[in-house]
Formats: sequence, structure tokens, C-alpha cells
Amino acid sequence: MYLPKQILWNRLIECLKEDLGFGDITSIMFEEDSKCIARVLTQQEGIIAGLEEARIIFEITGVEVLESAKDGISVEKDQTVLIVKGDPNKVLMGERTALNFIMKMSGIATKTRETVNIVQEISSKTRVACTRKVTPGFQYFEKRAVWLGGGDTHRFNLSDMILIKNNHIAAMNGVENAIQNVLAKKSFTKKIEIEVETMEDAIKAAKYDIDILMLDNFEPEDASRVITELEKNKLRNKVLIELSGGINENNLIEYAKLKPDIISLGYLIHSVHSFQAHLSLELKH
Amino acid sequence: MYLPKQILWNRLIECLKEDLGFGDITSIMFEEDSKCIARVLTQQEGIIAGLEEARIIFEITGVEVLESAKDGISVEKDQTVLIVKGDPNKVLMGERTALNFIMKMSGIATKTRETVNIVQEISSKTRVACTRKVTPGFQYFEKRAVWLGGGDTHRFNLSDMILIKNNHIAAMNGVENAIQNVLAKKSFTKKIEIEVETMEDAIKAAKYDIDILMLDNFEPEDASRVITELEKNKLRNKVLIELSGGINENNLIEYAKLKPDIISLGYLIHSVHSFQAHLSLELKH
Amino acid sequence: MYLPKQILWNRLIECLKEDLGFGDITSIMFEEDSKCIARVLTQQEGIIAGLEEARIIFEITGVEVLESAKDGISVEKDQTVLIVKGDPNKVLMGERTALNFIMKMSGIATKTRETVNIVQEISSKTRVACTRKVTPGFQYFEKRAVWLGGGDTHRFNLSDMILIKNNHIAAMNGVENAIQNVLAKKSFTKKIEIEVETMEDAIKAAKYDIDILMLDNFEPEDASRVITELEKNKLRNKVLIELSGGINENNLIEYAKLKPDIISLGYLIHSVHSFQAHLSLELKH
Amino acid sequence: MYLPKQILWNRLIECLKEDLGFGDITSIMFEEDSKCIARVLTQQEGIIAGLEEARIIFEITGVEVLESAKDGISVEKDQTVLIVKGDPNKVLMGERTALNFIMKMSGIATKTRETVNIVQEISSKTRVACTRKVTPGFQYFEKRAVWLGGGDTHRFNLSDMILIKNNHIAAMNGVENAIQNVLAKKSFTKKIEIEVETMEDAIKAAKYDIDILMLDNFEPEDASRVITELEKNKLRNKVLIELSGGINENNLIEYAKLKPDIISLGYLIHSVHSFQAHLSLELKH
Amino acid sequence: MYLPKQILWNRLIECLKEDLGFGDITSIMFEEDSKCIARVLTQQEGIIAGLEEARIIFEITGVEVLESAKDGISVEKDQTVLIVKGDPNKVLMGERTALNFIMKMSGIATKTRETVNIVQEISSKTRVACTRKVTPGFQYFEKRAVWLGGGDTHRFNLSDMILIKNNHIAAMNGVENAIQNVLAKKSFTKKIEIEVETMEDAIKAAKYDIDILMLDNFEPEDASRVITELEKNKLRNKVLIELSGGINENNLIEYAKLKPDIISLGYLIHSVHSFQAHLSLELKH
Amino acid sequence: MYLPKQILWNRLIECLKEDLGFGDITSIMFEEDSKCIARVLTQQEGIIAGLEEARIIFEITGVEVLESAKDGISVEKDQTVLIVKGDPNKVLMGERTALNFIMKMSGIATKTRETVNIVQEISSKTRVACTRKVTPGFQYFEKRAVWLGGGDTHRFNLSDMILIKNNHIAAMNGVENAIQNVLAKKSFTKKIEIEVETMEDAIKAAKYDIDILMLDNFEPEDASRVITELEKNKLRNKVLIELSGGINENNLIEYAKLKPDIISLGYLIHSVHSFQAHLSLELKH
Repeated sequence: MYLPKQILWNRLIECLKEDLGFGDITSIMFEEDSKCIARVLTQQEGIIAGLEEARIIFEITGVEVLESAKDGISVEKDQTVLIVKGDPNKVLMGERTALNFIMKMSGIATKTRETVNIVQEISSKTRVACTRKVTPGFQYFEKRAVWLGGGDTHRFNLSDMILIKNNHIAAMNGVENAIQNVLAKKSFTKKIEIEVETMEDAIKAAKYDIDILMLDNFEPEDASRVITELEKNKLRNKVLIELSGGINENNLIEYAKLKPDIISLGYLIHSVHSFQAHLSLELKH
Repeated sequence: MYLPKQILWNRLIECLKEDLGFGDITSIMFEEDSKCIARVLTQQEGIIAGLEEARIIFEITGVEVLESAKDGISVEKDQTVLIVKGDPNKVLMGERTALNFIMKMSGIATKTRETVNIVQEISSKTRVACTRKVTPGFQYFEKRAVWLGGGDTHRFNLSDMILIKNNHIAAMNGVENAIQNVLAKKSFTKKIEIEVETMEDAIKAAKYDIDILMLDNFEPEDASRVITELEKNKLRNKVLIELSGGINENNLIEYAKLKPDIISLGYLIHSVHSFQAHLSLELKH
Repeated sequence: MYLPKQILWNRLIECLKEDLGFGDITSIMFEEDSKCIARVLTQQEGIIAGLEEARIIFEITGVEVLESAKDGISVEKDQTVLIVKGDPNKVLMGERTALNFIMKMSGIATKTRETVNIVQEISSKTRVACTRKVTPGFQYFEKRAVWLGGGDTHRFNLSDMILIKNNHIAAMNGVENAIQNVLAKKSFTKKIEIEVETMEDAIKAAKYDIDILMLDNFEPEDASRVITELEKNKLRNKVLIELSGGINENNLIEYAKLKPDIISLGYLIHSVHSFQAHLSLELKH
Repeated sequence: MYLPKQILWNRLIECLKEDLGFGDITSIMFEEDSKCIARVLTQQEGIIAGLEEARIIFEITGVEVLESAKDGISVEKDQTVLIVKGDPNKVLMGERTALNFIMKMSGIATKTRETVNIVQEISSKTRVACTRKVTPGFQYFEKRAVWLGGGDTHRFNLSDMILIKNNHIAAMNGVENAIQNVLAKKSFTKKIEIEVETMEDAIKAAKYDIDILMLDNFEPEDASRVITELEKNKLRNKVLIELSGGINENNLIEYAKLKPDIISLGYLIHSVHSFQAHLSLELKH
Repeated sequence: MYLPKQILWNRLIECLKEDLGFGDITSIMFEEDSKCIARVLTQQEGIIAGLEEARIIFEITGVEVLESAKDGISVEKDQTVLIVKGDPNKVLMGERTALNFIMKMSGIATKTRETVNIVQEISSKTRVACTRKVTPGFQYFEKRAVWLGGGDTHRFNLSDMILIKNNHIAAMNGVENAIQNVLAKKSFTKKIEIEVETMEDAIKAAKYDIDILMLDNFEPEDASRVITELEKNKLRNKVLIELSGGINENNLIEYAKLKPDIISLGYLIHSVHSFQAHLSLELKH
Repeated sequence: MYLPKQILWNRLIECLKEDLGFGDITSIMFEEDSKCIARVLTQQEGIIAGLEEARIIFEITGVEVLESAKDGISVEKDQTVLIVKGDPNKVLMGERTALNFIMKMSGIATKTRETVNIVQEISSKTRVACTRKVTPGFQYFEKRAVWLGGGDTHRFNLSDMILIKNNHIAAMNGVENAIQNVLAKKSFTKKIEIEVETMEDAIKAAKYDIDILMLDNFEPEDASRVITELEKNKLRNKVLIELSGGINENNLIEYAKLKPDIISLGYLIHSVHSFQAHLSLELKH
């Protein structure tokens, strides 16, 4: 999952412009023809991401990228992941924004990979997915970080899958009415997922031609009971089962043991700790 | 700190467009003339923020805002903070993006307020500030959330204060050369801050006409020693002292006891947990 | 399928700006306080579309919309579909752009409805779909016109369904390699379609967990033979069958008789005749 | 008539972004370091156009352009008009949008050239022009395609020539009032054209200092009578005569025989068939 | 000459955004529910312009416009030209940008009107025009100010008239080659102007089917000699004569006496003094 | 003070697009493969600026920059400051916009340098600053021109310094109330300036913790009296003194003699004469 450099270019310029305003007024100190080498170094281990974005940012400020690790690989603490060369003025102008991409995206990728590893140890077929609880306008980068960490990106946005949620069901007076209306009008190119909160609705929904059934906010034992009931009704293999809501690091394993097709976790994106990294600059004579 | 609604409008449209793509394909289920009332409810206590943004988003999708709490106030769990009315289709189209603003910004405002309260109990003159470790392109909203939480916004970007950091000092071969160059060229309208890592540099820097001295990554006892030395040299009151780097919830109080002018904390923005809130919709007949 | 008015607003302003340049220099003739009533009248029968866009355009130029037909309904020749009121200067500034939306979108909607009617008479389960052969940058409006005409919008763009085409197969050295690679990496939220050109590839592909099988450029008898073979292999009901390529108004019925799930036609968008409509203005005293 | 590559760049990125969304999800199948050669081949004869735009699109997606025919030349069926080289992923990401430009623009250029040839055989001084019945926002590309086909681009937009149409005349209560008002206020740098529907108005208008007289929706014999009358009044050579409205491929020759200065045809842009072309890709080892 | 409010809206937002950055930090002093009345007052006499832009700016910041004079009228010193009402915070946020439009545009309109009056006293048929020596990106507003002052806007940009200048002639090896090439390829909808620097070139050019002949940098007596020669050759009435280059307030009358069709002056836009105006605010209780 | 080329790129494209419209229609005269050398030559002495912007414009139109002087240096009359090489079509397409940047920015830089020289002869510590009386949207370029001329850029915009002006004081019922409110809420990173109009307010203001005191519209003798009084109260060295309002070329020296810290002058930007320069092109064979 990626967009080419030239497509991201203007988006990253907007980020830089917010941070540059009328220019970097600290940089007035430099002589015009200085040159430096600067390295981005990790301060923790994890999965690195955001290097593609960092490279573009340094190209925008006018700095040459000498070496770069590949997004999505495992890194150690104190590992050099990016080396650039150029006018210190231009390096420092891009430093913070480049690091911010790396910190944010690597934080998400690292947490995703950890979670995938925990889940797949227990249930190798279960995918770990994020949700649409994202930073507005930063959706592409967060989804990409999940993908680099080995997670499933889930819906990108409101136009690539139908997802009938509790508010839709409320507004349509019930699961069946909502599904029937959607089935009658949808494009053949899109999947349908429905989020249910009760056993009853789960069974009702699974009888229709839907693709994914999300059990939302079920305790593990309740989810287990639904799955058993679906199996009894020979509905289990007709749909993918997604578990979501109220899942956290403490109970993750219990949910994984139910061997659902998907476990989705909002916190992979919305509440993750930044990955620690910094830039170290050395003047060149 | 705020920008008027009409200035934010296009920015929020961009956020919505990323999430809408070719339109909300789940909404095809609704009859055209349905109406609903929807409420945003908190799921935890804290400081609410992002309501201004949420209101604009609902106006963009074509929904009427009936009531709204004020950004920056304390809220309880299960409190209604926003009520909108309109076509369920248009409410649900904006739901996620509106909630994402509220979750992100209230999370930051809540953590900021908590921190300010802790610090000010010990040192009423000490301001709690954020840093430029932000989500690229989302800087305005994160800085505003800090401000709503009672924190200091610090530099907005690279053009509103001079901040000489370790990489500048490295590139200029020392604190004094860096300061002298900046003093010779700067505008009278901007302040100068310098970040130092040793006692020696702190004293050197404070002798110049600078406004703020940042002690970066000092252990509490080391910072204390620098402050005492500055006092001895009658330099303490010439500058504001900012402590930064390595400060966390466990050692915060120790730093506050030094009664610095400012404590700045990157994690207020970059590693905060989302505030929990959801939208509940009820069809109107 | 639609986007709210406020989201389309800036897009339509861009269209108007291209047509306005430094302003409408013919309009200098008008006195400032003139008022007129203007009507958009059809010059043929068909399905009307583009009225939503036309209304927004007149709001942008500053004209009041008094009445409007609904997009997607059948209209007669000489029917009034839109009535606006205001300064003639502002009406005429938007006239051409508004009519251009109506002409283009109604042309597509009309041809789509005709085609749907022909196909569904023969095979009521068969959907008529468009393709991605669109006018660059005008994709949303063309897809929406197909939808208003009762057609299926197919993929919106490259990120909402996987569609393995002949060039992918060529690059991957065969159908199976292409499918296996995609299956290993895809998100559970997206469907997979594969386009094949031979019976052999059709059978190979249908054995995998794909959602849609496109028979591209098959003569009706060849397509029929593939369908029979799939039925023999009990693969017919596992996948949706889409027929595409080389289908035109002369042979459409022959393809429809095969009762495929979908018939897709590029010409619905790329080679359709504009719908004829004009604006008639009357000065108000 | 053209704009330089760098000016078109962002416009074409917008087209690609609409088609890419969150990225091409089919492309996940490719190994990172594949390379291919791809050729755009015509599937009919005609005038080729849109290659400039196609080249820019492939540069945006990151593909090298090896060879390209020149926009505006005659091509045969099965002729290679563009050869690119690069990552198949990046070739296929741009394929459809590049082809869409070629199909649309070559369709217009081809029909324009055909029409110019027919008309000039009969009246070598008569120019064939398009109108402002364009696809909103795509005006530049359609006008350029007409120009590449040898047609006259007519007004680009509302600010480069004054064109008094029937609605202006209605709003100003007559031809003379409209002309007098415009003459009093216009810039010396712009031409005036007036569209008339009766002999009487034609003669009235031609007596003023106008540049072009458009006979709109006249039968050939009626247009002929107006021209004779203008000659009698020694007004024929004072103005350019443009015939427009109701002209189609069946009666084109009759209108050309009147030897007007210009024949303008909306269908050159709004109802033209796409030119057929496709891309063929071959993996490189 | 004007663009509607909604078209200018986003352009003016860009201007405000440059001036607002992260918001007006001085405004933090105000209580939330203050109200004020503010008046824009002239500090000199002249022709007022920019009020339309000022009104839009205040609407963008969220202020109500109570009264406004009309752009293009004569004003006295100390005249109130705009009255707004609202939150002082929002008034002051827009104050400077609104005044900057008024100062710049009224300065141009005032100087234009003065010049038109001087010239028309001597030669009532002579139009005073500006040139394309504008502030990049601000062209529309400067041209509109000239128009409000009664001047001719000349070419808006490079696509609405052909203007062959000395560098074109140099590149084409002479006037005749340049004209012939243009005549063979131009659209019938655009005029041709040619700038000449010698009598010889003037006569050569006037023999072709051109619309305007610009005598560039001629002393009055030399220009006079050219005009006489054109009359002798019966070429004077075939073309409009524009005088340009080296004309200033001291020699303007001498050029006007030659009764050219147009005198064009770059300084109307590029070197004009700002019109003096200020905003006076009064708190409302 | 500067922004990197890639950040300015899109901004300059917008300027060019306004001037290009549908393309340069005069350029149709050129053969495709012509080449030329073109030189920008000064027509007066002064400080050159805008060359960076001119270079980018020529790169955008597709021309190679061979040589360029450095922005901010002194130039003689008839000096070549920029040499470009390429297709004459592309040179002439950028000519006017490039020259417009040079003319505008060099005009400001030249006047600024002159003024700085006059002032510093009398008071070497006094800085000459511009104000926010700028061309809307062109602020960055005008501030940069002042900086290149050796002036102080003052506030860039409303978010980088607090400046309490007469309207703020009016709205807050007095100097002290305004200052107290701001002090209680401001960020430690920003300076406070206050503009006063009476001796009384000057003394009141200087007693607070403000950074800069602006004496607005004071006659030299009155300003002198305020400064003496501040000295008497030992307040002079606590604040920077800025003189502004009513200062012009005739009385500048009198104000400089007061040895203020800053003299600020709106006319450096808003009423400056354009610097004269032109482009001379020579065809290459």
C-alpha cells in the first residue's frame, strides 16, 4: 500500500509549510556554503516506518539522501536509519517534520507488529486490523504504518466497503431492514460488513448474503457462544468473523483463542506511543 | 488561540474528503426524507476539545447543530457535549471524522490539564508547555488542544521564535558563536531561546542577551546545580528557565520542585491516549 | 452515491474559474439592478442528471434557485427542469457551465437507462456497469450519472477493489501466480476480480477464492461455452460472471441472453452523446 | 496552444489522485524490483493527441518515457505511439489515466481533422471551430485537442472575447441596445461577436463596429439570403460570418458552400467517440 | 469587470491565512462576548476601491457588514466608507488585510482617474490603459482597480490578445515574418497588436491585417511623424494607435495632444502611492 | 529569511497560471526547435532582489538558468543580473512575471537600503523596519525584499508577536487593562509590543513587563520628551523604543537623531517605485 513520491510531494509540502511559516529564523546563523552530514538514529527497537516520507521531506528542503533503511524492517536501538548530506540550514529546516513522520508511523508499525505476533502465535489465521479512528487528514499515513507493521488496513474510507453499524441499524429499525435495503442497491464490487451487538442479530444477519460479521463489544465468552451458534446453523463459514470493541492488551489473548478471522483494534492508531528517534548532525569541512 | 470557522472550513473539508472518497456507500440504505437527532456522549471524564471542529464538520455535511458544550470545560462521563439534527445519512457521513477530532484533541487537553494541576500545586509560577513533536499537518489542532487544557503552546513553528538547539551549536562550533551570529542578524520582534546540555554552556549562554535558557536532558539534581550557579552569577532573573527532555509522569514532581519558569513535555501531544466518546442516533418521526 | 453540496462546492468553483478567467466581459452591458427569471428546458426526452451540480453553480454565481426537478427522473422534451431568479449577469455567468454538467451527465444517465432496460428485459438479474474509461478528473460526476441511470458504478478507482487484468497476468507469468500473490497480501475488506481471455484461464481462476470473473472480449458463443464448463465444474455459483469488451448496441442482446451477473460497457461514459438542453431568460420588471 | 509541463503537473496529479485513492491495491502482487517495457498502441487510425499528458502522468507515477510520437500527427491502426519503461506497478498505476487522456483527446482531434478536411475541400477560407460546450474543468484539454486537429479554439472562456447571445439580447431588449452598451464600455483589446437569429437583427448588428456576426440556427437557404443582403449593404466584408447551430455531418457541406468565415460545431467536443488505444506490457528480465 | 463573491472567497482566505498564521495572538485579551462598531475612514480624497474585497474579508472573519460605499465612487477626506459590527477580536483580525486591499486598490483607482481626466480634457477619444507590469498573483485586483478608475484593463494575460513585442520580432528576424506567422495560425476570436520602435516597422506592420499598433518609446515628435506618415499611406484608420514607454506625468499632455487611441502607462499599477485610510473601533455596551 | 525553492514552486506556478490562462497565444509564431539566450538587464542602480523567484519561474516554464547575480547585492545601471537559455517561447512566457518579481522586490530592497544608510549614519544602533501594510498574499516576498535591503522584517503576521494597538486599547478601555489581560494569558515564547499615542500612556505601559514601546504619530519633539521622561523614570533601558507614523523622507533625520531602537516605515513596502529592468533576447543558431 503506497502512493508514489510525486503524489505525496504536495501533501508533505503542506506539512512543511505549516512548520516553516515565513522561514526558519534560527537558520540565519549559518554561512551560506556550509555542508553537513546528518543521521537519523533510533532510540529504541521496533519496526521502522516513515522513512519514505522523511526522504521526500529532505528532498523538498533541498538535501541529498545518501542512505536509507527500508520501511517495515525491524531495527535495533541506536541504529542509523537515514543519512542525508547538505546545507545544515536545509537539514535543520526539515529535521522536526521528518522525525515527526518517523516517530508517529514507527510507533504504529511497532505496536502493530507486536500485536500481530501475539495473536498469530495463538491463531495463525487471525488478521489484526486497525479501524477508522484516525487523525483526520493523516489517514493514509496511519493506515500505511499499520500495513508496514503487518496489520490489515480495514476500510480506507467510507467508499470502499459497506459497513452497517449500530447507528445505521437504529435508524433503519433493525438489522434485516438495513441489510435488505443495502443488498438491493449496492454495487457488485463492494463487500458488506455488519456490526451486531446481540446473538440474535448475529444469526439474523448471517443468513443474508453478507461478507463479514462484526461482533462488537462482546465479552470473550459471549463471542464464543455466538460462534458456536453460527456453526450449529452452518453459517460460520459463510462469513468472516471480526471481533472488535473493548479488546486491549490484557484480554487480547482470550479473544485470539476464539480464532476469529479478524481482530480489529482502534488503539493501534489512536493511542499509540511515539517511537523514539533523533537526528545527529556533523559539520563537514 | 483560534482561527475563525471560515478559515478552518476548507481544511476540514480536506479531512472529510479523505474519508468520503466517492461518497458513503453504506448510506444508500436511507430513505431521502428521514430525520434524526444525534448526541455525542463522553465515555470518560476530562477536558473536552474538538467540538468547534466537530460542529464545522456537521455543517459541512449539511446537519444542523442544536446544542454544544464549550471547548475547554471539564466534563463528566456520559455527558452529552453536542446535539445535532438532520438526515441520518449526513450525520453518519460526518460521525467518524467529528469524533476523531474530539477524541484526539480532548485526549491532549485532558492530559495537559492534569499535568498543569500537578505542576502548579508545587510551583504556581511554572508553565507546562508542549513541543513541536506533533502530527505533521495537524499542528494547529494539537497546539490548540494544549492551549484549551491550560498549557503553553511554545513555538508554533520555525518562524516565530529563535531556538538554538544542539545541532545548531554543533554546526556553529559552540554556543557563543551560535548566539553571536543570531544576535547580529535577528529581528527585534522575536525572542531567542537556547538549549544547553552542560553547566558550562548554560552559564556562557546566560551572559548574552537571550530570553530563554532550556536545560535539556538534565537530571533534577544537575538542573538544580545550574540554577544555583546562575543565581550566584546574578543571571537567574535575566532569563526564563525551561526544563525539557526525559521528564515523565514519574519524575515530574522532582522537576517542578526546581521552580523553573517552564516545563516542556513532548508526550502531551505525541503519545497521549485518545479521549473516549461516541455518537448515539435516534430516528425522528 | 453522492457527495454533499459543501464538498462539491470548491470543485465546481474550479470549473467556473476556468470558464470565467478575469470575469465575464460580455456582462458589462447590464445595469446593476436588473432581475430575471431563467429556465433550463430539455430539448429531448431522457433521464435528467447534473441538476444538483447546476444548482450549486448558480448558488456560486449568486443566483437564487426557485425550483428544480430531481436528478434521475425521466423527462419529456421541452420540460422545464430548473428555474432560477436573479441578476442576468450572474445567471449568464453560470449558464454554460451549468448546462455543460446537465448535458454531459444526462447524456450518460439516459444511455445507461436505455441499456439497463434492454438488458433487464432479457435477464432481470444482470446488472449493467460502466468501466474506468472516464474523463480524467471528472470520474465522480460520470460514475454518479451512471448510478442515476440505474447502472452499477463498478470500481470507483484503483483502491476499492482488486482487478487483475491481462497486463498483470503478463507481468506475473500467469493467472495462478497473480492470484496467489494477491490472496496472500490483500485486505479482507476488498473483493478480487480477475479478467481472463481464455477458457483455460477462466477455469483456473475460478478455482481460487476470487469474487468476480470477467470474460474479456469473448464472442457470445465462447462466453457461453465457458459458462457451461464452469457449471460442469460446479464453479458457476462461486463467482460472479462479468462480460466485457467488444459489446455494443448491436450484439448486446446476445450477451444478455447468457444471463451473466454483470455486463460492463465503456461507451456508457466515454462515447455518449450529450443530452440537449438550453436556458431561456426573461427580464423581470 | 499549450501550457508547459510544470504547469500541467499538479492538474494531472489531481486526476491521478482521484483514480488512486489510497493506492493501487492490485499492485501488491508485484515483487519490488521488477522492470517492464510497455507500449501504447492505437486500435484505429486518426489524429493522435494526449501524448503530452500521458507522458507527464507516467513521469508522475515514476516511469521513464523512452519514445513518443508527436501530438497532432496522423497515425495508423496498430501503431506504437508511446513506449515507457519501469516498475510494472508504476506503469499500471498510470495506465488507465494516461489512456483516458489519449482516448478522449485523440477522439476530438480525429473528428476535428475529418471535419476540417471536408469543409476546406469546399471552402478553403472557412475555419472549423468548436464551442464552449465542454466538459467542465477539462476545457483546456478539449480546446487543445481541437487545435491539434486543425480546428479553431474559439473563445477559451468568458473573458477573452465579447459574445452577445440571444439571452443577452432578450435581457437588453434588442440587438442595438446590447451592442451600444458594450461598445461604450469594452476594452480595446477584445473583439465583439454577436449571435443573431433573424435577417433583421443581422443587418442591424452589422452596421455597428462589431467583429464577428454569428448566424445561429439558420437553414442554409436563410443564411444564404442574409449573406446576400449583407453584400448588398456593403456590410459583408466588415465582419466575419460564423455559422452555428443545427449543423451536423449530413448538412455540413451545404453550409460550407456558403463560404462563411467560420463554421462552429459543439459536437466536436461534447459528443465525440473515444479513440481506441490500449497498453501492452512485457516483463523485462 | 468583476468575479462573484464566492469565487473570490478562497483567494481572500489565502491572503488572510498568510497574515493569521496560527491565529491572532494579540486578541487573547478580549472577553468572549464583546461587541463593537468599526468604521473605515478615508484620510485623503480620491476614488475608493477594494471595498468589495474588504467586505468579503470581514465576512470571512465572522463580522457583519452594516454599510458600505460603492467601489469606484469619488470620496472626500474623512469619509466613512465601510461600517462593520461584531466581536472586536474578529474585526481586528481582518483589519489590516481589509485596509491593505483598500489602500492598494484605491491608490491605483485614484491615480487612474486623475490621469484619465488629464488625458480626456485634451483628447476625448483617447483611452488610458495599464500594462502587465503587475504584482504577481495580484493581477485581477490591480486590473479591476484600473477599471474602477475609468482606465482600460489592456490584456488580462497572455491568452486573450496577441501582442508581438520587440523580443518576438528579434527572435523572428523582423516584423513581417512575425506577423505573417501569427496571421497564419491565430484564432479568429483574438486581436493582434504589434509593438514597433521605428517608423519603418510601423509602416510595414500597418499594412498587414493587424488591429493595434503600439509605438513604443517614441518621443512625441517622432510619434507624430509616424502618425502623419500612416495618414499619408491611408493606414491610420485601419489600426488603433497605442503610445507606450517613457510617458510620465510631465510629458503626458504632449502625448495626449497626438490624439492616439490609447496611452498605456505601467506606473498606474507598479509605482502608485497607497491611498490612506484607517479603521476606527468603538466598543458597544 | 527565505523558503526553499520547492516550497515556493507551487506559489510561483499560481502567479504564472494567472498570467498564462490557456497559454501564450503570441508564441504560436515560433518554430519548435528555436533556441535563444536572454539577459535580464538593470535600467538603474540599486539593490537587486527577486532573482531567486525569477530563476524558479524560468525553471517552471522550462528554461535553463546559466548565470545569476545574488539577491541583495548592489548593482549598477545596465548590469546583467540573470542569463537564461532555451526555447524563446518558454523564455517569453516567463519574461513578464519574472521581471515583475525583480521590479517589485528590487524597488523595495533599494529604498530600504537607502533609508538604512541615512538612518545609520546618524544613529548606528537604530534599525529600520517595515510594517504589515503589504500587498495581500504577497507578504512573504515584500518582507524578504526588506530583509535583503538590510531592514528589519518586523512582525511577519498576527501570530508571531503581540502588538497592542490603539483599537485594542480603545476596546479594552485603556492601556493597563489591555496589558494586564495579555500578560496573564500569553505564551512565554512571544514578545509584547504596545503602541501609544500620549506621554501618559507611554509611561504607564513601560512600567509593565513589555518588550517594545511604539510611539505612534509623535512629532519629533514630543517623542523626545517621552524618551527623556522614560529615562528619568529609569524605564528607557527596560524597553525597546520604536518610532512610527508620519515619518517620511523629509523628517526622517529628525527622528533618527532621537536614537530610537527602531524606526518603522510603511512606505518601504506600500508606496515604493518599481525598480527598472528589462529582458533582452538574442536568437541562437
